[in-house]
Formats: sequence, structure tokens, C-alpha cells
Amino acid sequence: MKSINEIIREKPWMGWLIFFTSLLLTFILGLLASSIMERRAESVAVKKVAGKIEPFEGRWEAWGKYFPKEYESYLLTSDTTFRSLHGGNATRDMLAEEPELVILWAGHAFSKDYKQGRGHYYAVQDVLKSLRIGAPMKPGDGPMPGTCWTCKSPDVLKLMNQHGIEGFYGKKLSDFLTEVKNPIGCADCHDPATMQLQITRPALLEAMKAMGKDINKVTHQEMRTLVCAQCHVEYYFKGEKKYLVFPWSKGLSVDSMENYYDEIAFSDWVHPLSKAPLLKAQHPDYELYVMGIHAQRGLSCADCHMPYVSEGGTKFTSHHMVSPLYHINKTCQVCHRESEEELRRNVYERQEKIANERHRLAKLLVRAHFEAKAAWDKGATEQEMQPVLKLIRHAQWRWDYAAASHGAAFHAPLEVMRIIATGIDKVQDARLLLARILASKGIDEVKIPDISTKEKAQKAIGLDMDKLNKEKAEFLKKVGV
Amino acid sequence: MKSINEIIREKPWMGWLIFFTSLLLTFILGLLASSIMERRAESVAVKKVAGKIEPFEGRWEAWGKYFPKEYESYLLTSDTTFRSLHGGNATRDMLAEEPELVILWAGHAFSKDYKQGRGHYYAVQDVLKSLRIGAPMKPGDGPMPGTCWTCKSPDVLKLMNQHGIEGFYGKKLSDFLTEVKNPIGCADCHDPATMQLQITRPALLEAMKAMGKDINKVTHQEMRTLVCAQCHVEYYFKGEKKYLVFPWSKGLSVDSMENYYDEIAFSDWVHPLSKAPLLKAQHPDYELYVMGIHAQRGLSCADCHMPYVSEGGTKFTSHHMVSPLYHINKTCQVCHRESEEELRRNVYERQEKIANERHRLAKLLVRAHFEAKAAWDKGATEQEMQPVLKLIRHAQWRWDYAAASHGAAFHAPLEVMRIIATGIDKVQDARLLLARILASKGIDEVKIPDISTKEKAQKAIGLDMDKLNKEKAEFLKKVGV
Repeated sequence: MKSINEIIREKPWMGWLIFFTSLLLTFILGLLASSIMERRAESVAVKKVAGKIEPFEGRWEAWGKYFPKEYESYLLTSDTTFRSLHGGNATRDMLAEEPELVILWAGHAFSKDYKQGRGHYYAVQDVLKSLRIGAPMKPGDGPMPGTCWTCKSPDVLKLMNQHGIEGFYGKKLSDFLTEVKNPIGCADCHDPATMQLQITRPALLEAMKAMGKDINKVTHQEMRTLVCAQCHVEYYFKGEKKYLVFPWSKGLSVDSMENYYDEIAFSDWVHPLSKAPLLKAQHPDYELYVMGIHAQRGLSCADCHMPYVSEGGTKFTSHHMVSPLYHINKTCQVCHRESEEELRRNVYERQEKIANERHRLAKLLVRAHFEAKAAWDKGATEQEMQPVLKLIRHAQWRWDYAAASHGAAFHAPLEVMRIIATGIDKVQDARLLLARILASKGIDEVKIPDISTKEKAQKAIGLDMDKLNKEKAEFLKKVGV
Repeated sequence: MKSINEIIREKPWMGWLIFFTSLLLTFILGLLASSIMERRAESVAVKKVAGKIEPFEGRWEAWGKYFPKEYESYLLTSDTTFRSLHGGNATRDMLAEEPELVILWAGHAFSKDYKQGRGHYYAVQDVLKSLRIGAPMKPGDGPMPGTCWTCKSPDVLKLMNQHGIEGFYGKKLSDFLTEVKNPIGCADCHDPATMQLQITRPALLEAMKAMGKDINKVTHQEMRTLVCAQCHVEYYFKGEKKYLVFPWSKGLSVDSMENYYDEIAFSDWVHPLSKAPLLKAQHPDYELYVMGIHAQRGLSCADCHMPYVSEGGTKFTSHHMVSPLYHINKTCQVCHRESEEELRRNVYERQEKIANERHRLAKLLVRAHFEAKAAWDKGATEQEMQPVLKLIRHAQWRWDYAAASHGAAFHAPLEVMRIIATGIDKVQDARLLLARILASKGIDEVKIPDISTKEKAQKAIGLDMDKLNKEKAEFLKKVGV
């Protein structure tokens, strides 16, 4: 048989034919391959492009097209009918339930309004409705910084890109009333390109770095907790720019954070009665969770708050973030073989014991604030009062830490009771010093005004609630909520 | 064929033959049956008879012949080498480890001597060695009643039969020095005839009756806890006859028992510094155990403290009563799949948190006693001091309850921390009242003497330890221990 070389040598046009045929075949195969690849990549590509087009990041409906089950379960966070003994997702007026809170937070926005948060679905609405943000009628108005929006909406990602992180924090909450529309949603925790869990908020990344931890080295299971820890943590607003910081660099315990704040002499506000420079604990859920047995056994937030559920033969992660008591059969009973009734009773027992001691501590703190005021009124000196104020600061920090941490009584009951016990010790130490100061000025026992209802307590600290409520009504009309 | 009647009618001697043959056969069959029954009953019968012959009830060697594995494992309670973070079975001098105890128990025998109990094997020896019983050189001497022996020896059963229950309690401990020889053993919990678990001590039966509970209606699993609850409980000596009573008629909580004691105005002693009428908590192990999750999940004391073990193909209940940490693989790991190291760490974490707060409460109580003394010294009135003394009484009761309950930090950590938290509140309330009283008498802060060691603390409360130790040495020589 003749070789290719011999044929080409005999008929030179055959060489050209082979060459062009090869070229054509290569082109056709290339087209085919690219078409196949395109089809395979389509769903990812569509999402990837969509993820980059505004306002996709915020609009969870758009994500819902691709992940209908997750989306539909997310919509269940709009339900407000579930009530547990000390939780649930109904609007509960905590100031009415425990009027002492009004006194403890006198001078702080929380004394005006503190309601149990509803589901993620209401994250934006509940901020707007809260008396804590006032009634800012035009951009730049009002007491609250842009930082307040950080955890409320995926629209924040766009705003952070536009203004820079510091620029976003440093604006006013009222500057973004029209931009922040969508409540907490998909893009807050998921990469729109890969759907992988991701940390989108800088504060957690910065806090982890400050602790010497590398976010790139955490497992998927850890991410199922860390995405929640972007928001469900203790934090403060640092400096004039109100930069969001988690005070973790000395450790995650209540004592470590107290040290942190003391060292930088930070306080959220000064109490108008006692003049104590106080810390407002936010919701140290993650920090307390990691001290409990469920974290020690390797569970993530999602394991109990976003359990795997089955529907029509498919299994998916419920995005109805809610108390695990809402559906014990899908949460506790995955590991525990006791009856729903018994498991609920076990949780309630912990909550009851801790609530009782927390109330005890709150009542003692109320006394301390009024006793300190009486001491100031009788001419106590800064020097006399300094140790008293420090004790009140530390005691109230511990009370607030225990009170503000949603689920703490279940997440880490012993640690919370320990925190409350040390709080009781400290507030009583403060009152002991005050008793000595007061006695030296001829005062025996200090009378506490009637604070038996929220209204009476708010009146006792001089709040004009009618005015605040009227202004708020106008504001809500304007923003259409 | 002829009938029997016709044969007998024809030959009358045949009737007699049939009659006597039947009689003989009945007799032989009877002998055979009784022999079989006797063999089957032999082992039970031997034990039954032996159980009724003194001193079998006390001598566990005799039981050991029939139950060698249980007996040999019991002998392991003589081991004193196991030390855990806050427990174990070595002799630990608790007064040396925490000299504050000397002050808290000033005026009570516990200020002289308080050592961590060793195993059951040493129950009698450890009583004799304790400075708390003094050095009674002849019958009728010494401070302690017969009641003290109740839980120490199965020989007590014989003595209660001889003297009657009240008669036994009403005697002196020194009256039975020669009779009480055998430490806690088989007959304390087992019926010698059937080996079934049984309650042998009247106090538990009486306490259950007072609570409206019927001992005959409890399950075997409950008995595996109740036999321990004969002794591992809070109790007091009632009246002149020192009748042993568990103060449970109002309930099993620390608060219920406090109410019980308050209502009958009972106190174990009056503190020489503060003059507070105090309660000495015994070891409320059972009462706290039932408040914890392991009891709520249906476990008995024996499940963890006397686990099933295998030896040479047979399975039996270990009678080496000991901390479950001694052999985690046979206890915790029956249900929990974590490593020994992690399980131990979990227990230690609870113990550490509770020990820290308990120490805090102890230190505050020391201050309160000295501050109360200062107030008395400056002429405080009974009327002024009455509320102070009540608060000290309740606070110290709670501290002692938490301190005396072996294993409480594990059995019911949240309940113990709650008890300590309320104790801190109460002692600080007492100190606050004292600050007012003292201020009215021109006193600011009260100096506490140096109590940094057991020796210094015992000197501070005026104990002549040399004398006590010398007397004890003579006593031990006499009783041959």
C-alpha cells in the first residue's frame, strides 16, 4: 500500500484536500463541544450572571426560581403564630412583660421599645417599626448609623460595594431607607455563583482574623454555624465612623469581652440615674452556643434551626429558621428518643430556672441604679462612686448578656447561670458599698418609685411616649410600612 | 372380666392387700418428692437459715461464699488510689484544701475535721478516726448519738432489733463500739433469703410514707436508686432521742427542706461568731440526683456507680461502688459514644464552674460571720440582727447543700448553680443589712483575720487541735484502729 507521502507526491491536490478537511472537522467538532459545554454550564452561568445583576442579590424571589423548596420554606419565617414558654416568633413586648428593663436601659433607646424579634422575613420591617431608630423623616436624620442595617438585608452587600465598608457604616440609617428593601435572604449566606456557604459580612472575617483564625480552613459543618455568627453575636460600634466590631480578640467568654471593653474604656451609654458607663449586650448567641454541650458534640446552628426535611421524596435543608421546639420531631428527636412532651419539658425547665435568677438580678440592678442616684443626690464624690459604678457596669453587662442571648438558657444553661451568679455577686457588692456611702450621709433605705408597668416605668425615667409614638406613626406612613 | 368388687367379695384378703400396697406406694412417692424438693430448695434454705444466724448479717465474707464476684468487687472499695479533679476515694483533707470551711463550721464538729470519705470498706474505720466523734474512752461518753452508726454497718440491723429503733438512736455512739464491726455490706441492701433489694433502714421508709409514697409499689430499677437513698441523703437528728429523719415532707428541693426546718425552728448549732442558728447539710445526693437529666432519663445510681461488668463469660453487677470516672468505658460509654478524654473533660468543666462559684459563696459567708460578730460587739440588738441571721442561715444552708452533695456538680449542675446563685444573693443581702448596722455604729469595713491555712483558721476560732489529736490517738489505740 502506498504511503500518504507517496500519494501526495503523485497528486499534490490531495494534500490540500486533507488539510482543509481536517480544518473543517476540527471546526465542526469544536462547535459541537462548545455547544455541549454551554448546555452543561447554563444553569450555573445564568445564576452567575444573574448574581451580578442588581437587584438579584436582594430579591430572593429570583433565587426561589432555582431553589423553590428552600425559598418556600424561607417564606415560613413570616409565620408569627408560634409561642414557646420564653420564645417563639410572635411580637412580644418585653418591656411590658418585665418593666424593670425600662429602668435598666434608661437613657438608652432600648428603654423606649424592645420587642421579641419576629422571623427573618420581618428583618427590615421590624427595624423601621422600632422606636429605637426614632422617626427620621429625611436622609441624614435620626440617631442610628448605617451600621444598623448591616444584618438586616442582602441589599447591604450592594451598598457596601458602593460606599465602601467604612463609608456604609458611617452614613445614617436614614440614608438608606429606599435602598434597603429586602429582608435577610439567600445572598447573605450563599455565593450566587456556586451556592456554597460564604461569609459576606466583614465584621466576622475581621474578628476571626483578630483571633488568629483562618476562614478558609473551616469545614462545611463549621460554616453551617459561622454564617449565622455573622449576625447572632455580641458586637459594638467603634469610633465616630460606627465601625462594626466583634469584641473577641481576648476570647469568647463574657469575662474576656468585659476585659476587652474595659481596656478600651468603651461604653454604649451612661446611665442617667446611677451615672454608670454601661455596656449594652447585643445577642451573644454564637458565643454562648459554643460553650454548650450541643456545640461540644459537633452540632451546627443549622442542624437544629434548619433541619433536613423531606417533601415528595426529596430531602432538603429547611430555610424556615425557627426555634427547634417548633418541630421537635425534625430536630431534637433526630438524636434523642424521648417524647416531644418530655423534651419540651426539659428545655422549659432550663429556661424557667434561668429566667427566675435573671429576674432576680434585674430587680437588684434596678435597686442599685436608684441607690446610686440617691448617693449622688446626697453629694457622693466621684472617688467614692467609682468602684460602685464599675461593679454596676459589670453586673449589668452580665445580666444583659444573659438576657440578650436568644436561646442561651438552652444553648449553655450552666454557663448562663454562672454568668448570672457572678452578676448577682457584683450588683450586691455595689449595693453594699452604696449602703456604706448612703449611711455616711444619713440615708438608710432608698425608696424605688412604682415601676410595676411599662408605662409607669417609662414615666419614671421621663420618656414622652405619646410624642415618640406619634412621630413614629408619621414616619411609618411616609415609608409605607 | 370380674369387677374389683366381685373379686373382693370372693377373696376378702385381696381388699387388704390393695389397701396396704396403695399406702406403701404413697409413702415411697412422698419420700421421693420431698427429697427432690429439698434439693431444689437447698441453696435458698441454707442462705435463709444462715441469714438468720448472727453474725451473718454483718459478715460479708459469709455472703462472699455464695456471691464471690460481687464480694470480690466490693473488696475493691478498699482501693484509695483513684483521684479525680474534685473527687476520688483517697483521703483528702478538705479543711486544708479550703480553710474557709473551718470558719463556716466554727462551733460545729466539722470545723475540727472533714476528710473526703473513702470507700464503703472504710465506713466504720473512718468514723472512728474522725475527730468529729471525739475520743469516747468508755460507753456513754462523747458527743455523738447511736444514730451516727445508722449508715455505717449492717451490724446496725441486729442492734436495732435488740434495742428498738428509738432505743438504738437514743444511745451513744460509744455504746456500740464493740458491736459495730463490719462496714457497709450485703445485708444493708439485700434480703438474705431472696437476695432481692430491700430497704433496711427505717428513715427512708418513714420519709416515703410522709411523702405519700408506697415502697411496695416501686420498680426494681427504682430500688437500684432507693437502696442508696437510705443513706446518701439530707437528714437530721430529731429531738432528744436523736431520731433520724429525712426532711422531705414538703418536697425534695433545697427550698422545700429550708421551709421544713424553718417551720420547726430547727438548727444544728448556733455559730459562735455570727450567732446565726445554722443548718448543717448532710449529703443530699439522692435529692439532687433526681433533679438532673440522668435521673430524668430513667437511670439509677447503680447504672453508673455499679455497672454491669463481664468476667470469664459471666456478667454481674460490680459492687465496687465508685465514681463513674473510674472506668468510663463501663459507665458513660454504655450510652455516650465520645472518647473517655472528652467525657472526662465534660464532667470536669461542670465541676470547675460550680466549684468556683461555691468558693465565691464560701468567702462571702466568712465575711458575713465576721461582720455579724463586729455588729454584736458594737451592741447591735437582737431585733436589728434577726433578719441578718435568717439570711446567713439560708445562704449557708445553700452553700453547704451544694458543697456536701457528692457528685452534685455532675448530677444536676444547673440546679446546683441555681442554689449557689440564690445563696450569693442572700449572703450579700445579709452583708448589706450589716453594712447599714455597722455604719450606724461608726464601723466601715470589718477586718478578717488570717485564715489562709487550716491551722490558722482553727486557731482563729479557738480550737486546741493538739489536745484533740492527742485524745484521738489514745482512743484509736484503745479501739485498735
